[in-house]
Amino acid sequence: MSRVYNFSAGPAVLPEPVLAQAAQEMLDWHGSGMSIMEMSHRGKEFISVYERAESDLRELMVIPRDYKVLFLQGGALGQFAAIPMNLLRGKATADYVVTGQWSKKAVSEAKKYCKVNIAASSADANFTYAPKQSQWKLDPNAAFVHYTSNETIGGVEFQWTPDTGVVPLVADASSHILSRTIDVARHGVIYAGAQKNIGPAGLTIVVVREDLIGQALSTTPTIYDFKVQAENDSMINTPPTYGIYMAGLVFQWLKKLGGVEKMEQINIQKAKLIYDYLDATEFYHSPVAKEDRSRMNVPFTLRSEALDEAFLKEAKAHNLTQLKGHRSVGGMRASIYNAMPIEGVQALVDFMREFERTHG
Amino acid sequence: MSRVYNFSAGPAVLPEPVLAQAAQEMLDWHGSGMSIMEMSHRGKEFISVYERAESDLRELMVIPRDYKVLFLQGGALGQFAAIPMNLLRGKATADYVVTGQWSKKAVSEAKKYCKVNIAASSADANFTYAPKQSQWKLDPNAAFVHYTSNETIGGVEFQWTPDTGVVPLVADASSHILSRTIDVARHGVIYAGAQKNIGPAGLTIVVVREDLIGQALSTTPTIYDFKVQAENDSMINTPPTYGIYMAGLVFQWLKKLGGVEKMEQINIQKAKLIYDYLDATEFYHSPVAKEDRSRMNVPFTLRSEALDEAFLKEAKAHNLTQLKGHRSVGGMRASIYNAMPIEGVQALVDFMREFERTHG
Repeated sequence: MSRVYNFSAGPAVLPEPVLAQAAQEMLDWHGSGMSIMEMSHRGKEFISVYERAESDLRELMVIPRDYKVLFLQGGALGQFAAIPMNLLRGKATADYVVTGQWSKKAVSEAKKYCKVNIAASSADANFTYAPKQSQWKLDPNAAFVHYTSNETIGGVEFQWTPDTGVVPLVADASSHILSRTIDVARHGVIYAGAQKNIGPAGLTIVVVREDLIGQALSTTPTIYDFKVQAENDSMINTPPTYGIYMAGLVFQWLKKLGGVEKMEQINIQKAKLIYDYLDATEFYHSPVAKEDRSRMNVPFTLRSEALDEAFLKEAKAHNLTQLKGHRSVGGMRASIYNAMPIEGVQALVDFMREFERTHG
Repeated sequence: MSRVYNFSAGPAVLPEPVLAQAAQEMLDWHGSGMSIMEMSHRGKEFISVYERAESDLRELMVIPRDYKVLFLQGGALGQFAAIPMNLLRGKATADYVVTGQWSKKAVSEAKKYCKVNIAASSADANFTYAPKQSQWKLDPNAAFVHYTSNETIGGVEFQWTPDTGVVPLVADASSHILSRTIDVARHGVIYAGAQKNIGPAGLTIVVVREDLIGQALSTTPTIYDFKVQAENDSMINTPPTYGIYMAGLVFQWLKKLGGVEKMEQINIQKAKLIYDYLDATEFYHSPVAKEDRSRMNVPFTLRSEALDEAFLKEAKAHNLTQLKGHRSVGGMRASIYNAMPIEGVQALVDFMREFERTHG
């Protein structure tokens, strides 16, 4: 078996020791004679897995006691509906900050349920920066302010936490959760699809302040009613048990590695490695404003589009895979999530340098 | 490693060869150097897995061409909302047949979106039978007729397909899909959570006739808009890729075994083994009307509740696990899904006989 360096934007690379443990436990979890995916979600074995996953996540993210952690399904797109359904609380308008494809989708979905005020947007520069807060036009009557704290496609990341006063701040943190410290207490809700830094696709994590729970629209599907799910430990229906188990293993791996602060230091190094190189050459180009560049998703273009195919082909021959950029941006994208080791980023930069030398 | 006989109602036992293959492929799927759960859902590797899973399911269930197959998230509870949201099509009322806890939940959820007409109910006998169609009071203006073709908790299974004329028939087949032939063409929609006969929890399969698609309520979350999902091959968002992969392995296992007809013959034998014994003794009791007994979920009580604890303890010592009945019914429940071999049912009956001898 030879593992590759996998730069997929998601579903994405997972820590190899986590996969190895999952493989080893697949037919018999801890002497139970069953796979974890064959067990009742209400049995003591799975409950122990669930409780440890939640408590490890609380520790890793330093989640205050007055926040609930929900393990749901349906990804960020599901939350694009669930957030207004739960958080409007009798109000008619919500503020959205638009910094790329994902925040645009969040806006489209929210419009089904409320009036959307675009408080700020970087559409004027093809979503290559994060608008400074001084430029935001917040509606004081908004039910909440939604932003995409890391745009997976455009590679724009907020390096700061917006201040929205008493209006709850909601973050779609899907593609950078657990990659850096996030001040949970300054948010009303933080949500994330699991398939980047947490585990397999199909699990969605919602961290929500308790006082925001309990006023869902009457047409909210029960699976998305935060109150019902919070009161039932996310088990009003069968949760995605295997995804929660895998997430739990990833949380343990991250704790062992030294937690989120340590992970952030490594991620800073990884990002510096690639951005320093991108800035030192004319052959490659990063379109994103320097101060807003994502540490997780690094889109870049080559001098000529005509070289894209050769780049991807030769990269694959070097065991560097899934580097093709999103069709809306073009070029390449290297997603360097938590589970991508610095050696993988170094191998990519070495290859890019070599490719420049041979094709420059 | 010693595997047990696992009678969990769901998440439930999976075929051992499927788990073994999944374990073996965990770190490197088909020489890709990646786990299937690390791959982009839009890459050619995963697309091949997805397409084969769909085509195998179509073959196994004999799904006509004018039906779409959707791979969604959120379980049956999610569909309890999605069904009225998609199928009301301008109508105000839907018919529901109530045969147990799950159909009751479906009714509660539907009431958020429409007027519900209870066309028939077996509440008068604590949900121990399926009302004959001659007793149903259908509303000719109903948008659809919903029934729970197998009640997981009460163990009541329809051994016949209702005839609702031009009004679309909708089946929650979660706990017996693929266990018997189902006439898809007589249904408008058949849906099922995966965690009984298909794969891990977190995947939900919806088989829907094309002409019913396209008139979802404007407040339907996009993840539950059948039209959007059908047009995007269930990939308007990241699907639960690992669940789809596991389901695909289960479909391959079932095909190899001989398909659904062969599986049904085995399931008839398994069910006969346990029901024949239940009927031959006074020590155990099956509460369900003989003609409506589920082949998948077999609830039964012991002569005295005081013996329940000893039964569960001794069963576990015999490697027979997860037999405790649902709290709303009490007693025991043996779920004997497709992946439960006949040897497991025989071992259970042998143990029950021995327990009767020592405690009778």
